[in-house]
Amino acid sequence: MNPLNGYDYEDLQLGMSESFVKTITETDIELFATASGDNNAVHLDEEFAKTTPFGGRVAHGMLTASVISAAIASRLPGPGSIYLGQNLRFKAPVRPGETVQVTVTVTDLHPEKQRVALSTVCTVQDRVVIEGDALILPTSAKRRKQ
Amino acid sequence: MNPLNGYDYEDLQLGMSESFVKTITETDIELFATASGDNNAVHLDEEFAKTTPFGGRVAHGMLTASVISAAIASRLPGPGSIYLGQNLRFKAPVRPGETVQVTVTVTDLHPEKQRVALSTVCTVQDRVVIEGDALILPTSAKRRKQ
Repeated sequence: MNPLNGYDYEDLQLGMSESFVKTITETDIELFATASGDNNAVHLDEEFAKTTPFGGRVAHGMLTASVISAAIASRLPGPGSIYLGQNLRFKAPVRPGETVQVTVTVTDLHPEKQRVALSTVCTVQDRVVIEGDALILPTSAKRRKQ
Repeated sequence: MNPLNGYDYEDLQLGMSESFVKTITETDIELFATASGDNNAVHLDEEFAKTTPFGGRVAHGMLTASVISAAIASRLPGPGSIYLGQNLRFKAPVRPGETVQVTVTVTDLHPEKQRVALSTVCTVQDRVVIEGDALILPTSAKRRKQ
């Protein structure tokens, strides 16, 4: 582990997995709209959203995806990780008040550059809402000693 | 155009391009931390962040990526778009107070499913901070008439 209590590259093994859970509230959606600049009415206006194919307000897909960032930064590999890439496939909407579980699992280790690939799956109850994978540069005990 | 002033699939052509600009403030970073659950100190604590390879606070990569969502939802294809996928390659950090320009460009049209692929590039001045591409289901005049 590194001094921030995150995993070093040397600690990681194929199949290691961690989860992070967050409830997406109406307030979270409003904060995200301000932070991102995405004020689309399908996220913010229930009366309008009822007229769309979603039938009501939904969270921004990128807000749900942002919980992946929290899972990586706080759980696996944890603090000190540098985010290099993320692929996202949006499968189903998330509604205000729903609880997203993000599960990140080590799927590949690249020793030459000390990078790790993770599968990143977001579910609400048993429904997959986002599938994807991440590429991360964790901290490294070896680099710290150089 | 659809009734929300977004582009229908039938309006889109290869090479169409739009930009969206947002300054990422310290407040945006704090709002995003609350909304996403990612409270990593490198984003929130300047004293700590000075001790990291970044040398100071940086925006969450997914916050900068979220401005892509705003560009798609508000500009191209615009309101009514459904986000199907996004790939992200994080190339450089964004610091509080920096202004991100997102440029989205139509790179492929898939008539069978009426989907559009966009390249999505985020820059700060002349520095590319995120590269990637998006897959979108725009509204459709044809489907609206069915």
